[in-house]
Amino acid sequence: MPIITLLTDFGFQDEYVGALKGVILSVNESATIVDISHGIEAQDVVAAAHVLASAYRYFPQGTVHVAIVDPGVGTERTILAAKCNGCYFVAPDNGILSPVLQQGSDVTIRSVENEALFRHPVSRTFHGRDIMAPVAARLSSGFALEEVGPPLEINEIDVLGEQAPQRLSHNKIEGRIVAVDHFGNLITNIHVDDLAKLEGDRTMIFIGDVVVTGMNQSYAQGDPGRLIAIIGSRNCIEIAVNSESAAKKLNIGKGGIIRVKRQ
Amino acid sequence: MPIITLLTDFGFQDEYVGALKGVILSVNESATIVDISHGIEAQDVVAAAHVLASAYRYFPQGTVHVAIVDPGVGTERTILAAKCNGCYFVAPDNGILSPVLQQGSDVTIRSVENEALFRHPVSRTFHGRDIMAPVAARLSSGFALEEVGPPLEINEIDVLGEQAPQRLSHNKIEGRIVAVDHFGNLITNIHVDDLAKLEGDRTMIFIGDVVVTGMNQSYAQGDPGRLIAIIGSRNCIEIAVNSESAAKKLNIGKGGIIRVKRQ
Amino acid sequence: MPIITLLTDFGFQDEYVGALKGVILSVNESATIVDISHGIEAQDVVAAAHVLASAYRYFPQGTVHVAIVDPGVGTERTILAAKCNGCYFVAPDNGILSPVLQQGSDVTIRSVENEALFRHPVSRTFHGRDIMAPVAARLSSGFALEEVGPPLEINEIDVLGEQAPQRLSHNKIEGRIVAVDHFGNLITNIHVDDLAKLEGDRTMIFIGDVVVTGMNQSYAQGDPGRLIAIIGSRNCIEIAVNSESAAKKLNIGKGGIIRVKRQ
Repeated sequence: MPIITLLTDFGFQDEYVGALKGVILSVNESATIVDISHGIEAQDVVAAAHVLASAYRYFPQGTVHVAIVDPGVGTERTILAAKCNGCYFVAPDNGILSPVLQQGSDVTIRSVENEALFRHPVSRTFHGRDIMAPVAARLSSGFALEEVGPPLEINEIDVLGEQAPQRLSHNKIEGRIVAVDHFGNLITNIHVDDLAKLEGDRTMIFIGDVVVTGMNQSYAQGDPGRLIAIIGSRNCIEIAVNSESAAKKLNIGKGGIIRVKRQ
Repeated sequence: MPIITLLTDFGFQDEYVGALKGVILSVNESATIVDISHGIEAQDVVAAAHVLASAYRYFPQGTVHVAIVDPGVGTERTILAAKCNGCYFVAPDNGILSPVLQQGSDVTIRSVENEALFRHPVSRTFHGRDIMAPVAARLSSGFALEEVGPPLEINEIDVLGEQAPQRLSHNKIEGRIVAVDHFGNLITNIHVDDLAKLEGDRTMIFIGDVVVTGMNQSYAQGDPGRLIAIIGSRNCIEIAVNSESAAKKLNIGKGGIIRVKRQ
Repeated sequence: MPIITLLTDFGFQDEYVGALKGVILSVNESATIVDISHGIEAQDVVAAAHVLASAYRYFPQGTVHVAIVDPGVGTERTILAAKCNGCYFVAPDNGILSPVLQQGSDVTIRSVENEALFRHPVSRTFHGRDIMAPVAARLSSGFALEEVGPPLEINEIDVLGEQAPQRLSHNKIEGRIVAVDHFGNLITNIHVDDLAKLEGDRTMIFIGDVVVTGMNQSYAQGDPGRLIAIIGSRNCIEIAVNSESAAKKLNIGKGGIIRVKRQ
């Protein structure tokens, strides 16, 4: 039962997701297709990269992950097929795979150039349908990664222009909000391991005009409406509000700065 | 082909649904995963309970239904695994299963406590991924319900704080709008059987400032824009407007009162 | 692995899509169910017809496509089951299948009347669940199309009241915007073949108050914010804006007129 996951910014109203699935099933009718999300904001490569890096770890070895947020479709940008941590990935070379490949092990990367694998005629506007879907379906059928095109080194691929958290002192670090989830929780890029490296026992978090003291153990700890900090499902600091949206309450969103101090 | 359905308030933009599916397929790669809905309003346990009670009946015997609307995640609330009417259910103990289990037959309930079945480490924020998904996947593989944890009686589980329709007299009943569907139809909790118990032939329905007389046979009966009452797909009274949204037209929503009189 | 696709205007919050899937799997537990879209605007038969006609071509022969945008449910409108280009279709007779069947080859159409195939009792409000889903599941199991009901001719079915593009002169044609996609791209009904029939080398496109000169090869050609015309994935002219929504930028939507002149 080969599994192919789909992650796109295609939304839910058009035929685009259906076309991907039809092409995949036409190449490999036994593929199990799993939607990770089609609700990535249009052209938000960074958000898709984080969702992919978070989600793929939960799938079995051998799963083929297809990530299509592709504002450069039809230009000279490369398409990548890669293997990493036992899973396959197919995506445009625009940074969407860089968190996975930079942090992964056993990384092999190929530039997708073997036109015999494509759906023809290849459009200039929908390489997801005409190139990425059929190549992913071939990989899910056991087709060798080495046959899709020439090798690339990890330092040859495009990367996200994101800033890592900055350690400010022995007990301070500054990071950013990298996602606002469906519940309005503010997901930051400060990992639980970053937090553990700060000296001190008591955590104070500065975000917008407010300070949150201490780390919570659950969203529902404390009263409804209370602002809390918690280690979320990405193992990073999240700012949340019990039963409400922290994004609305603080009027803050992606890119917002968060400072953490321990003492 | 074991079937596992998913019903959540996770929405469509994040990695949360994908993580559930990956965990399920990692435990049971032959599971057929079916999305019932991920569009339940955040933390609306009552809405999810009604959707689940309405949807599960259409699935084959042996299907495992996972319902995750879980504002209490990480607190001391129990997680339930149950069997009822030949289907399995896995959900937090917050009332989301109560309509199914209270109305069902052949009910067995267990408290999910067998940590050998969990995904480790278990987070405090995402028991759907770390407990409910792997337990559901085990049940779909034929794992015995009795092995997931100790038994619970039906009167030990949490229930919804909902009011049943109130019979006001031999020919009057009062109920509430329990859902506004995607089309703006107002779904009430007055069942066709409740209606049949009222004396009289002619039905008058009072809702907001308006009165609807008689029951329609189809949404499209009468002119576009006409307000109608109909027995909907839940076998309950619905208020609808031909080709429009009744919720918008009447400016009314969930919790709104409806009175039915027959004469 | 019989494939059944679903295309509806049911949205994502209610139990309706789940009920369809449960009924299908109850009849044919080995069906592979693929969502094309449930995000069609409520009761927009025309939009659904275009999405279906665009998407179905990518699926394998033998796929059963179910399209349920059904404002006339419960009235005397017929339900169609058809075969065309090697695929099966089940839908209400309201025009939703007319683009597929009018342009297809090897067309067979039946009126769905064999009540032995239905789910009973048949509701008046949800024929998708009670008639179309079980009939589609039967067809996917190899049930003969001829057994679902009496034959219909192509000229007996309902058609969309849409206007085809109008050739204005040897080098001019007028069409319409038939869809605004998730990215805000304006999809017109002027096909690349219509364009090829116009005399002249240089293309000028008049839409709203603006003129677009020349055809682009990719969405990202030119600067961000630039208005472009391109042959999109439906092989029709699209008006797009690099990295933005053309619909918002031009404040125009479905039904908007587009004139093309070559010289």
